[in-house]
Amino acid sequence: MRKVAIVGIGHSRFGRRAEVDIAELAFESIKAAMEDAGVEKRDVENVTLGSAGGWYEESLPAVVVNEYAGFHNLPTMRVEAACASGSAAVRSAYLSIASGESEVALAVGLEKMTEVDTLTSVELMGRAGSYLWEFENYGMTFPAYYALYAVAHMDRFGTTQEDLARIAIKAHHYASLNPLAQFQKEITLEKAMNSQMVSWPLKLYDACPITDGSAAVVLASEETAKKLSDTPVWIKGMGVSSDSANLSKRDDYVGLGATVDAARKAYAISRTSPQDFDVATCHDCFTIAELMAYEDLGFCAKGEGKNMIREGQTEIGGKIPVNVDGGLKAKGHPVGATGVSMMVEVSKQLRGEAGPRQVPLKKGNGLVHNVGGTGHYCYVTVLSRSA
Amino acid sequence: MRKVAIVGIGHSRFGRRAEVDIAELAFESIKAAMEDAGVEKRDVENVTLGSAGGWYEESLPAVVVNEYAGFHNLPTMRVEAACASGSAAVRSAYLSIASGESEVALAVGLEKMTEVDTLTSVELMGRAGSYLWEFENYGMTFPAYYALYAVAHMDRFGTTQEDLARIAIKAHHYASLNPLAQFQKEITLEKAMNSQMVSWPLKLYDACPITDGSAAVVLASEETAKKLSDTPVWIKGMGVSSDSANLSKRDDYVGLGATVDAARKAYAISRTSPQDFDVATCHDCFTIAELMAYEDLGFCAKGEGKNMIREGQTEIGGKIPVNVDGGLKAKGHPVGATGVSMMVEVSKQLRGEAGPRQVPLKKGNGLVHNVGGTGHYCYVTVLSRSA
Repeated sequence: MRKVAIVGIGHSRFGRRAEVDIAELAFESIKAAMEDAGVEKRDVENVTLGSAGGWYEESLPAVVVNEYAGFHNLPTMRVEAACASGSAAVRSAYLSIASGESEVALAVGLEKMTEVDTLTSVELMGRAGSYLWEFENYGMTFPAYYALYAVAHMDRFGTTQEDLARIAIKAHHYASLNPLAQFQKEITLEKAMNSQMVSWPLKLYDACPITDGSAAVVLASEETAKKLSDTPVWIKGMGVSSDSANLSKRDDYVGLGATVDAARKAYAISRTSPQDFDVATCHDCFTIAELMAYEDLGFCAKGEGKNMIREGQTEIGGKIPVNVDGGLKAKGHPVGATGVSMMVEVSKQLRGEAGPRQVPLKKGNGLVHNVGGTGHYCYVTVLSRSA
Repeated sequence: MRKVAIVGIGHSRFGRRAEVDIAELAFESIKAAMEDAGVEKRDVENVTLGSAGGWYEESLPAVVVNEYAGFHNLPTMRVEAACASGSAAVRSAYLSIASGESEVALAVGLEKMTEVDTLTSVELMGRAGSYLWEFENYGMTFPAYYALYAVAHMDRFGTTQEDLARIAIKAHHYASLNPLAQFQKEITLEKAMNSQMVSWPLKLYDACPITDGSAAVVLASEETAKKLSDTPVWIKGMGVSSDSANLSKRDDYVGLGATVDAARKAYAISRTSPQDFDVATCHDCFTIAELMAYEDLGFCAKGEGKNMIREGQTEIGGKIPVNVDGGLKAKGHPVGATGVSMMVEVSKQLRGEAGPRQVPLKKGNGLVHNVGGTGHYCYVTVLSRSA
């Protein structure tokens, strides 16, 4: 496989973006990524759009976005891996360059979720899984799925609701330092603990919001990357996995098997181990999801996730800073954009351009952990300053 | 890029398939393709599902299909390029192997369109394009889009409604020889010409039906293909292009610019020309689409498509047999399955296994032309008996 680097990054403001349509929203990050890479339209050889869809009216979002961006006659498609659609888009662009098919490729992540009312949005999320069995028969919602995991984890390992609240507090703190984040205010333990119950033990502040947003990355081959950028961020490997549609077929409910498997693959391909990272973005659609990710990715032993957050090990200055952009929880979670947004954040960190949120760079590697559904899909990507 | 071959093909019966759910429907072709390739579940390294979705309830079809098929922990995603989603799935699997990421990959195409009523299905098709501008403002339907092209083509080149009807007659004839086709009966010129007007000049028999179906191909690297198969069918190149979402931005209405561009790319990559093919599948969602494809792919000059059908040049024994499986028109058009179904048909032909529909093999090459929307996407794939 040829080496591939991220040479341009772009990111829209996340939040309720009623003033723009999907094409305008996507273009905010496309334009920024192309300017950052120093490439023109004629340089881009293909565009992959990651978007789960369903929230907005356009059914061919890729061509609508491309038309607005001024791309003509480009190879293009949309990819969907639920909430990991953004990483799936990056994988597609990555394989195009790794195979030798192209020199410069664009991956865009997009979702505009506020075009439907909140109840519809909740239904769309709840359908992620084995719809006919779980949603229709049992009325499962998306928070309810993760609540099952939270209950099991609390029961087995003594994780507490306060531990989960601390993850939310961390997320809101870092979001307050990220001008593109949906939420800009810090929260207190009291506020988190007293927030409305959604699905016991998960409360309002344990859940990520409904978000509009986009993110984009320009990828290039080794030869082209070295021409375009002084600070290329190399994709050292992507580990991808999946798990049963039906949650009743999972082995246990204290972690995501797809994360464990995707991480194992990503570490093997990139010849890294969990100790080799300066920064990570973990898929924290709910606070329990971030805590399980600490364990499933090997940042600590199974059951020890609670200690990571209690000891501040996932804050800047700790063992492995996680979601110092605010995470899905407070930066926001525009489904198809999230994986690309994570790539943007880790690239920014590895380039040393994260400002007040900058982590110390010692090892030169960052990790992107992006989950689709309730561990139905998992994409783990290892990024590095060295080729 | 590494060489990639199709080593296994599978195809469900197309038609109204109320007796199966999407996973069962997909498994019919997955099982057949894997048995044809002689591979086991453990050999398959990733699965890409091509499906536009919207017609069936499951929102994570890839994981639902994979669970039923017994795949566990595999890299997977769904891809969408409207009616070219099947070719997009093949491209993804192709890039995975071409890059060296995997040795054996599975591409599956799937749609189950009869889960919604016909009017909803018509709306879903009509949304393919620039939805907010064309569908909401002008009430454009999918037949209306292609009717615009038919009117322009008839005006400019003297193409007649009879010419279009002859394409339908050919399609129904070959479908009657294909036990997996939705329609099994021949039609007459009189019947086609007197059928209900849908959008002038396109009548009922100018339009493909609404279809449930799936198709699958197993792809392998050169080394693995030679072990697995005595009759590998090589993917010599894929040309991919796209065009404006909004039809008002097209250069003209007598052909699809995306087809011209995708074909140019595919011929260049595979070092072939339009004269080098024994067989082709062309995207005939409407009869006018097949006629324009003759021209846009270079099988004849612009405006000469009518002569191709009048002279029988696209029948078996003619210059270039087209859609001798019945085409979208009569085999059926389960949106996401169509591109993969085309790969199955051309592979079968190049392997000499097409029975009563077998074309003479002189050049050893076949072409797959798969369009998404009204020329919004186009994927042209060159397949060959020689590596």
